[in-house]
Amino acid sequence: MKTEWVAVDWGTSNLRAWGIDADGETTFSAASSLGMGKLTPDAFPGVLRDVLAPELSADAHADVLICGMAGARQGWMEAPYLDAPADLGGLAFGAVSPPMPGSQLRPRILPGVCQKLAGAEDVMRGEETQILGLSAILPGFGGIAVLPGTHSKWVAINGRRIERFATVMTGELFEVLRTHSVLRLSLNGDLNGEERDAGFEAGLGAGIEAPEKLAATLFKVRTGALLSNRQPAWCAAFLSGLLIGAEIGGQRDWIEADRGEIPLVGSAQLCALYARGLKRLGIESRVIDATAATLAGLKAARQNLS
Amino acid sequence: MKTEWVAVDWGTSNLRAWGIDADGETTFSAASSLGMGKLTPDAFPGVLRDVLAPELSADAHADVLICGMAGARQGWMEAPYLDAPADLGGLAFGAVSPPMPGSQLRPRILPGVCQKLAGAEDVMRGEETQILGLSAILPGFGGIAVLPGTHSKWVAINGRRIERFATVMTGELFEVLRTHSVLRLSLNGDLNGEERDAGFEAGLGAGIEAPEKLAATLFKVRTGALLSNRQPAWCAAFLSGLLIGAEIGGQRDWIEADRGEIPLVGSAQLCALYARGLKRLGIESRVIDATAATLAGLKAARQNLS
Repeated sequence: MKTEWVAVDWGTSNLRAWGIDADGETTFSAASSLGMGKLTPDAFPGVLRDVLAPELSADAHADVLICGMAGARQGWMEAPYLDAPADLGGLAFGAVSPPMPGSQLRPRILPGVCQKLAGAEDVMRGEETQILGLSAILPGFGGIAVLPGTHSKWVAINGRRIERFATVMTGELFEVLRTHSVLRLSLNGDLNGEERDAGFEAGLGAGIEAPEKLAATLFKVRTGALLSNRQPAWCAAFLSGLLIGAEIGGQRDWIEADRGEIPLVGSAQLCALYARGLKRLGIESRVIDATAATLAGLKAARQNLS
Repeated sequence: MKTEWVAVDWGTSNLRAWGIDADGETTFSAASSLGMGKLTPDAFPGVLRDVLAPELSADAHADVLICGMAGARQGWMEAPYLDAPADLGGLAFGAVSPPMPGSQLRPRILPGVCQKLAGAEDVMRGEETQILGLSAILPGFGGIAVLPGTHSKWVAINGRRIERFATVMTGELFEVLRTHSVLRLSLNGDLNGEERDAGFEAGLGAGIEAPEKLAATLFKVRTGALLSNRQPAWCAAFLSGLLIGAEIGGQRDWIEADRGEIPLVGSAQLCALYARGLKRLGIESRVIDATAATLAGLKAARQNLS
């Protein structure tokens, strides 16, 4: 198996790379914790070389197709956004080629997608590649896809076309509240067992039911501990359920306009939590592994280049 | 003017004390940054003594009536909550008397108020004293009062009676998002001028209009900077307006059920921002200084004791 090109997902906190042969099979995979957030622009070439060194000879010729935050303004080289509505069939044509001195590697960084619609301004970098991958995994799919995470993306798709999208800061809210707010006092403990399940369901219901009261219901994490003797596992799961529930409840206008099966692109564990929430509204979902979607997207983008 | 007793507001982050004479006039005021959050239970007597030492002789006899977090479980001595609905005329009867060895000071700590209603569990400590003060400042007032702050309180009042209340974590959300989230990248800058005003109004409108989309609209702080070249002052004010707007929008059921003038108890600056939001819904408000309410409340509680 000869590596023909290299697929790279270079995010804020880490990077992953896969060697791909002429048949589209993976020849190797590699990873590093040197995400965009830890690097100055001039550091990227060396990191890429180091990550690939165990797998490729120093004089190897290879295209390297990169998606994610490496293309942000503060990344390696800015890859200007495509404007939504956007046809992802043209994603690769917007790629930029950062210099890679003294190497036969030819890196190209895919653009993100922005939405300039007044009042709905939004951006994504990396998720557009997963959406392109999704369109390859589910050919002809049209409807809503959800990519849960630090900054969840809700995307209205028609084949390879992104019609519109919205970011919900659910994962980041969970992290900052869990770590820095008064709620942290109620959360020290493990996350397993029945308590966790009961807390998650209670939070999920409260969030879906009344997303407009999120900032009030958050305080129930604290009062659960103070008044109802709720255990840390219950409180942490309530917080998680509440935030996911409020995300789903807040997107109810999107859901009601579609009501089709929703692909969830992300980790199996996180997607399962979203599936429980959607189920409460009578919406079916199916989980698409995030890495599979990213790889399928990079392969599809590469095909458009050749 | 002879100090007859001492009124103390002992919160999480600081404490303030006022000497009061027989006519209810203030004989001195003192303050310390040694709030409950920085003290172990055994440290409270020494701090109280030190704060009052410049004003009272070491052998002075005086009652010291305390409200706030000094009465929390992790404070000086726990003053068990009154249950809402609660008549604040009885607030002083729930006070606890912590020991003050080797001193003629007789401290008493007022209780907070809790609400055990399923799904609406809530707590306050300190605000109940401001509500009691409000009932003295606006005799016979019935309706909704709002106490904006780190943990804003919405309180349905009938004279001295708290019918029900709800906490909204607006101020704390502002702080943790401003300090610890990705939004911080868009906020470094001053908060003055026209940019600030425009950003606040934009956020306020978005929050009131669609409080259920708070976690999504938060991301507009970031995209405002990335896509629309919004300045840090605009972004910070948008965040503030959005959170206040979402608080008001999320409490719309309370507001619509009442529609009367709303007393706002807090700092003049913060209350003015809430007044702008309420005005958008056609609701009048009036500002009551937080310190005046606290002092009036401590005096009213003291009267009930004597």
